[in-house]
Amino acid sequence: MAAKTALQVVVTGGAGQIAYSLIPLIARGLVFGAETRVNLRLLDIPPSAMALEGVAMEIQDSLFLTVLDGVIATTDEAKAFEGAQVAILLGGFPRRPGMERGDLIGKNAGIMKRMGEALERYASRNCKVVVVANPAPTNCIVLASHAPSIPRKNISCLSRLDHDRMVGMLLHEANRCLAEASGSVGNGTLGGVSDGGGGGGSRRRLGQADIRGVCVWGNHSNSQVPDASAVEFFVDGRWTPAASVIRDAAWLTLSSNAHERFDADGEAVLGLAEAVRGRGAAVLGARKLSSAMSAANAIAGHLSDWLVRPSAPAAPGLSAAAPAAPGAPQIVSMGVASDGNPFGVPEGLFCSFPVRCLGDGEWSFAEGFLLKEEAGHQLSLSVQELQEEKAMVLDALGGDASVQPPPSPRGGGGAAVGAVATLAKASGVRSNGTPISSL
Amino acid sequence: MAAKTALQVVVTGGAGQIAYSLIPLIARGLVFGAETRVNLRLLDIPPSAMALEGVAMEIQDSLFLTVLDGVIATTDEAKAFEGAQVAILLGGFPRRPGMERGDLIGKNAGIMKRMGEALERYASRNCKVVVVANPAPTNCIVLASHAPSIPRKNISCLSRLDHDRMVGMLLHEANRCLAEASGSVGNGTLGGVSDGGGGGGSRRRLGQADIRGVCVWGNHSNSQVPDASAVEFFVDGRWTPAASVIRDAAWLTLSSNAHERFDADGEAVLGLAEAVRGRGAAVLGARKLSSAMSAANAIAGHLSDWLVRPSAPAAPGLSAAAPAAPGAPQIVSMGVASDGNPFGVPEGLFCSFPVRCLGDGEWSFAEGFLLKEEAGHQLSLSVQELQEEKAMVLDALGGDASVQPPPSPRGGGGAAVGAVATLAKASGVRSNGTPISSL
Repeated sequence: MAAKTALQVVVTGGAGQIAYSLIPLIARGLVFGAETRVNLRLLDIPPSAMALEGVAMEIQDSLFLTVLDGVIATTDEAKAFEGAQVAILLGGFPRRPGMERGDLIGKNAGIMKRMGEALERYASRNCKVVVVANPAPTNCIVLASHAPSIPRKNISCLSRLDHDRMVGMLLHEANRCLAEASGSVGNGTLGGVSDGGGGGGSRRRLGQADIRGVCVWGNHSNSQVPDASAVEFFVDGRWTPAASVIRDAAWLTLSSNAHERFDADGEAVLGLAEAVRGRGAAVLGARKLSSAMSAANAIAGHLSDWLVRPSAPAAPGLSAAAPAAPGAPQIVSMGVASDGNPFGVPEGLFCSFPVRCLGDGEWSFAEGFLLKEEAGHQLSLSVQELQEEKAMVLDALGGDASVQPPPSPRGGGGAAVGAVATLAKASGVRSNGTPISSL
Repeated sequence: MAAKTALQVVVTGGAGQIAYSLIPLIARGLVFGAETRVNLRLLDIPPSAMALEGVAMEIQDSLFLTVLDGVIATTDEAKAFEGAQVAILLGGFPRRPGMERGDLIGKNAGIMKRMGEALERYASRNCKVVVVANPAPTNCIVLASHAPSIPRKNISCLSRLDHDRMVGMLLHEANRCLAEASGSVGNGTLGGVSDGGGGGGSRRRLGQADIRGVCVWGNHSNSQVPDASAVEFFVDGRWTPAASVIRDAAWLTLSSNAHERFDADGEAVLGLAEAVRGRGAAVLGARKLSSAMSAANAIAGHLSDWLVRPSAPAAPGLSAAAPAAPGAPQIVSMGVASDGNPFGVPEGLFCSFPVRCLGDGEWSFAEGFLLKEEAGHQLSLSVQELQEEKAMVLDALGGDASVQPPPSPRGGGGAAVGAVATLAKASGVRSNGTPISSL
């Protein structure tokens, strides 16, 4: 019976905007694979019960019967989490105008405590979790501490949207530079997406398989560290450092004051790091709605790389439309427990790192990545913010002693690193490392 | 160069909600096929330019580079329609509270006149068009009359959402009855989507490949005719009339007063036709937002069946997760020009009919369908409404003589029907036909 093998997936905030963009991706087999039947449980709070019912109607009307084995739309946590094998936590308390950051963190800590308890009580012991609700890494701390039976390595938060934004901007800029260099300038287009129809050159546009070494480290906040120091593009048959492709090298650096460029209208062009950090606000400002489509897309990527994809991204240099060929394991930015990380981040936090997805739910820290001086410095500031948030959470939950790193972390990384250095030390020791080609 | 072969697709109302759900489907190759590169032009009106820019940002952030060859987000009709090979017209004037139907039709006629002129002036002569903006069939009349170079057979409107809603409800009810009959009652779930995890029986659930004979005829309005008289399910290895599977036979009939059933809470269960007609309002009432997800899904189905799919729906009786096998050509409800239809609908209108999609942009009327007494009667009322709307459009556009059926319709159906009978006559002649198994 199909129901016996269906994957049990719970989505909280099921009536929200991100869920609305994510559900069709799940229901068309784009997250867990076309061969995996899914039993989808949509959870939301009672005031959203009607809206949730509307979503369930639309799911029926979309005839998603090939992948969806069943749908439960409910406000009952027990029903939603019972036997859950994957939990996608979108539901949180949004920041209201005038709200203090501490209040926001406290409100969401309460929600995450409930979610953690529900996981502990009802979910599969091997449930895989991605937290999207903000403050995502700190929410993971609360969640993990209230779901002690769930391995900490199974709990993650989304930094993939930041990662994908950075990849998109890097590809856009690299393609612009390559087109300019070869004399085929594409039509300028609104939003910066290049128009393949313009220009007369025949240079192949770089795609997702033609970039590596991207990482957004740290907190999912303005302190995030979009580190391009190890980025390489696959150009003319070989991996080439980003600074050799993108002529405005200062655009790539993390120190925003190093960058000065003006566009055709005389407006200052943001440096890469600043643009990545400000992207969510830019989309919100333009749409007056948050970036649900790209968030859902990033969640799909995060989960499919982690849980499904058998270490086979498209080989570089192929035309973008060509089928994927075996390649190096997927390395992406992922918010995970810091326990056992080789980058010097203290234990007991959740933080975005470069992570190697090994497929089938396994991952390890991508130990080939080196933290260069500026990235190390900025990461230490972001980690400081994570520690402050952790303190606020402890405060909000009444100093609950359970919100502590476990005495013996179960989730040690795959990297063969002995004693974990402090970040400050690592940052000093590892600075000025050169990008290596086997990243 | 890839750009030379990319499909040029324009989406109007590009900053709207349906576009927001549709873009990821296009950009992931789910509409025009994974092998077809797409140059996407998003058009909206100047007040939506910022929002459109936000959407373009999110497209870049979603790394849709495998399928998307380029994206243009613009408020300039010339740029959007230049060389367009597919036009998806979502943009229209929404009905405001207190607005008369005639006003709504007039406002949208003005928009469609512009769209028709843009098609005529800029688009490929073989551009395929689907109109989603309401009143969709009447909008097609205006559009076609202002784009005389575009074959009328290339212009369609969406009735697929109504069709899919009907399919979803029929499958749900059939599965409920089959489960009850075999003693394995699934858990009741919010929104009526069955929960495959419940029940102890081993009966295979019917999927999309296990139903045929569905058609929603007429206008895309409350006068639509969700006709289940020819519906059959593939049960126990053979095609079985719907009334032999669904025990509440009155639920299937078009005359709503024939149906009386009450659910567990004592509330009257709507008959199928009434439920299909009221579904849009039900979703709107529940979500407080229109049914963008399921509309986008229906548009994807409409276009891929029409333009891409090589007549190969999944073979019936296979497990829903099994790969599709060659089968009968896809028959779906589609709003098309009535010219040459074998069902007795007068020429010069656009109307939803059962249509056989032959792939690669070809379709023919599904002449195997018979109009039974009640469906024929209701269709004549819906056609009367279409004629009234046409008159309103003529009025709104100042009696523009060009809004007339062309003297010699280019878009005759594929059915080998001689003289086209009037609907009244056809309805009489064809009534009481029995469903035939080769539908």
